[in-house]
Amino acid sequence: MAKVIGIGLLGCGTVGTAVAEALTTTANPGLRAGLKLELRRVLVRNARKKRGLNLPAGVLTTEGQTVVTDPKVEIVVELLGGLEPARTLVLAALAAGKHVVTANKYLLAVHGHEIFAAARAANRCVAFEASCGGAIPIIGALLGGLAANDITQLVGIVNGTCNYILTQMTRGGQSYATALAGAQAAGYAEPDPTFDVNGTDSAHKLAVLAALAFGGRVDLASIACRGIDTLQDQDLRYGKELGYICKLLAIADKTAGGVSLQVRPTWVPADHPLANVHGSYNAIMVEGSLCGTALFYGRGAGPKPTASAVLGDVLEVALGVAPARFASLPRLDWQKDLKLVPSGKLTSRNYLRVTVRDVPGVLAKVTRLLGTQKISISAVVQHETNQGQFVPVVIMTHAAPQHQLDTALKAIDQLPEIGAPTVCMPVLG
Amino acid sequence: MAKVIGIGLLGCGTVGTAVAEALTTTANPGLRAGLKLELRRVLVRNARKKRGLNLPAGVLTTEGQTVVTDPKVEIVVELLGGLEPARTLVLAALAAGKHVVTANKYLLAVHGHEIFAAARAANRCVAFEASCGGAIPIIGALLGGLAANDITQLVGIVNGTCNYILTQMTRGGQSYATALAGAQAAGYAEPDPTFDVNGTDSAHKLAVLAALAFGGRVDLASIACRGIDTLQDQDLRYGKELGYICKLLAIADKTAGGVSLQVRPTWVPADHPLANVHGSYNAIMVEGSLCGTALFYGRGAGPKPTASAVLGDVLEVALGVAPARFASLPRLDWQKDLKLVPSGKLTSRNYLRVTVRDVPGVLAKVTRLLGTQKISISAVVQHETNQGQFVPVVIMTHAAPQHQLDTALKAIDQLPEIGAPTVCMPVLG
Repeated sequence: MAKVIGIGLLGCGTVGTAVAEALTTTANPGLRAGLKLELRRVLVRNARKKRGLNLPAGVLTTEGQTVVTDPKVEIVVELLGGLEPARTLVLAALAAGKHVVTANKYLLAVHGHEIFAAARAANRCVAFEASCGGAIPIIGALLGGLAANDITQLVGIVNGTCNYILTQMTRGGQSYATALAGAQAAGYAEPDPTFDVNGTDSAHKLAVLAALAFGGRVDLASIACRGIDTLQDQDLRYGKELGYICKLLAIADKTAGGVSLQVRPTWVPADHPLANVHGSYNAIMVEGSLCGTALFYGRGAGPKPTASAVLGDVLEVALGVAPARFASLPRLDWQKDLKLVPSGKLTSRNYLRVTVRDVPGVLAKVTRLLGTQKISISAVVQHETNQGQFVPVVIMTHAAPQHQLDTALKAIDQLPEIGAPTVCMPVLG
Repeated sequence: MAKVIGIGLLGCGTVGTAVAEALTTTANPGLRAGLKLELRRVLVRNARKKRGLNLPAGVLTTEGQTVVTDPKVEIVVELLGGLEPARTLVLAALAAGKHVVTANKYLLAVHGHEIFAAARAANRCVAFEASCGGAIPIIGALLGGLAANDITQLVGIVNGTCNYILTQMTRGGQSYATALAGAQAAGYAEPDPTFDVNGTDSAHKLAVLAALAFGGRVDLASIACRGIDTLQDQDLRYGKELGYICKLLAIADKTAGGVSLQVRPTWVPADHPLANVHGSYNAIMVEGSLCGTALFYGRGAGPKPTASAVLGDVLEVALGVAPARFASLPRLDWQKDLKLVPSGKLTSRNYLRVTVRDVPGVLAKVTRLLGTQKISISAVVQHETNQGQFVPVVIMTHAAPQHQLDTALKAIDQLPEIGAPTVCMPVLG
C-alpha cells in the first residue's frame, strides 16, 4: 500500500499546471517510491478559468490561507513567484506545520534567512531545487555528492531567457531587439523581461547557490551585476572573430580574502563546455578541491523541467531525505554573513573595444596607458577605415586585476582622440 | 561542538589514501555540516608500508574483521574492489550495525540484491555514489532531483580508461596498443586492463545505474557487451572523415516491451555533447519525461574525484540523509528483476565497413542485400584503389532494427567478393 501525502499548490500558472498534471495522471510520480502524492488544494486567481486539468471538486481556491492551513495538506508547493504574498504564505505554511517546496529564487535571495529560521523553529524543512537551474539537480549536488569539497569556483549560465537571446544573436546573427521579441513570442521571456535581461534573476540564483557552496548569507547588493541589455551587436561579432562566445555568467570565486560574486556578459572560448550551451539550456560548472571540474547541464526553464525539480523535492521531503538534510546542515543557516570581497580584486583577461579617431599615434597612446597599469596585450584587431574617422579597435588583454584595468580605462577615455566610452568585457579563464 | 563519527576504511590504495588524507588534514570535510569524521580503523595488506599519512597509532590493521566490528566505527568504507573479501566484510559490517559506503560497482552488480537485503534486515544503509561516474553525483541525481521522472534513456561514458585511450586514438592519432600503453604509464589503466577495455567495468556500472533509473534487479548476463579491445584504427579514421567520434557508451533504452541494456563502441556526431568528453572524464546523459535532456560531466576516476564521492556519501550517511533515502525507496530493492528486452529489437543507424574485392557490380550486390532488409543508405565512402584488390567500403545506414541488420550482414559476408567479416558499429541517435 502506497503512503498518501497531501500536496497544496500555491499558484497554477504554467509550472503549477505541469505539476498538477503530473500529480493527477495515472502514473503518479511517487508510486515507485511507495508514495501516492495527492493534490488537495490549489490556490488560483480565478477558480472558473479552464485549465484542462482533471481536479476533484473543491480543490481550487482563491484563498491562500485555505491551502497553507488545510490539515490534509502536508507539503505546500509555492509557485507564485515574487516576494508577496509568497513570503507571507510560506511563513504561514511553516507555522502551520507544513514542509515547503519552492521554486522562488527571488524570495530566497531576499528573505531566505527569515524563511529558514522559521522552518527550523517549526521543525519543518524548505526544499528549493527548482529555484536554480530548472531541472538540473545542482542544489542536491552541492548539498550531497559534492558536500565534502572545498568549492573554489562556481560558474553558471542560469537564465534561459538570456541564453536563448544570446544564442539567437551569436548563431542566428539577430539584433538584440529581434532576439528579445523572438524570446517573448516563443514564451521564454516574460512580458516584462527586465529581471531576466538586466541580470537580476541570475543574481538571485547566484545568491542562493553561493550561500550553499560557500556557507553563509549573501547580501544581494554585494553582487556586481550587469545584464545583456547593454550589449552591442558589433561586440558579439568582434568576439566571434577572435574565437569567443558571449554568455551571461553568474560567477562565484573563492579567494584568500573571501568570495567574490558577479553577474556579467562574459567571453567564453569557443571550445569551452559553457560555450556550447545553446538556447534555453542552463549549465553550472563547479570547481572543487576533490572533484576537480564538474558540470551540470539541462533545461533551465519551462513548465515540465521546473516540475521535474519541484516533484523531486516533494518526493525527497515525503521520504524524509530533505528534512534530514535541512535539519543537519548549518550551511543552510543563512543567519551568518558570507565573507565577500569586491570583484575589483579579481584578475581576469579582458576584451576592450576602444573607439578612436584614426590618426597617427593614437594606438601607441592607448597601449601605453595599458602598459602603465602593467596590462599586456594578447591580440589587437582593427579593420581598415577612412583616415580621420572614428574606428573601433578591439584589444584582448592578458590577465590583470580589475582595479588596474579600471584605472587604465579611465585614462584612455580621457584622451582627446576617443569618441565613445570604451567597452570592456571579461574573458572566462 | 561537532558530532564525532567514527570511520573504518577497508583498503588503502590510491583512493583509500586520498580518503584518509582528507580525513586527517586540518579542514575536516565534515566540519561545515557540524560533524567531525574520525578515521579509527584502516585495513591494509602491509601495516609497515610508508604511506605519507599522519595516522594515530593502532589505526592500521591487517585484519578486516577488526575494522567492521570495532564499536568505535559507525561507517565502514569499502574500497577493496573485487568480490572477495569485499562481500564478506560488507555483510559483516552490516550485521555489526555499521552503515556501509562503497565504490565497488562489481560487488553491487553481482551481489547488490544480497547486500541490500542484508542492509534492510540490519536497518542500516548502503551508499554507493562512488561506484559510478567518479565524482559525478549521478546516483544522487537519479534518486533525488530526477526521481519524479519516467526515465526513457540513459547513455554514459562511464569508463575513464577507455575514454582516455579513445581520445588518444581519435585526437592524437595513436594506435590502440600505443594508447593503452600510455594509459597504463599515466596510471589510468590497471596492469591488467581487461575489465576496462572489454567493457565489463562499464557493464557493471550500467547494471547499477539501470537498476536505479528503472527500478529492478539487472542480470549482468543480459547486458550486450563489447569493448574497445576489438576496435581497428582505420575505423576511427573513417568515422572521423564522416563527422563522428567513437565513444564506449553504456546505453539503457526503455521501450514498450522493457529495458534494453548494452555496452558498445558507438559513433557520436562530432557536435554532440558526449563527443566532447575527452581524456579520463566521464559523462552521463539522462532523458526523462519531465526534465528532458540532462547531462552530468566530471572526473570519472582517480583518487581525489573518487574520494569526493565517497566522502559525500559518508556525510549523507552521517546526517541521516542516505539512511532515509535507502529505507524509503523500493527501487533499491533489487529482489525484483527488471524486465529486459534484447537489444536486437532496437532501431539504430549503423556504420558498416565492408571489405570487398574491387570488381564491377559488387557494391550493387551489397546494397541490394541491405535493401532486401529495408535498410536504406545515408552515405557511402570508397577511396580509390587498384582494381581487383580488396578495398574497404564504408556505408552509413539510416535507422533500422538490429535483427534486420544482422540478417543483411550475414548474407553480405557470404558473398564471394567479401574478403573479411563486415565491421558494424551503431550510431547514437
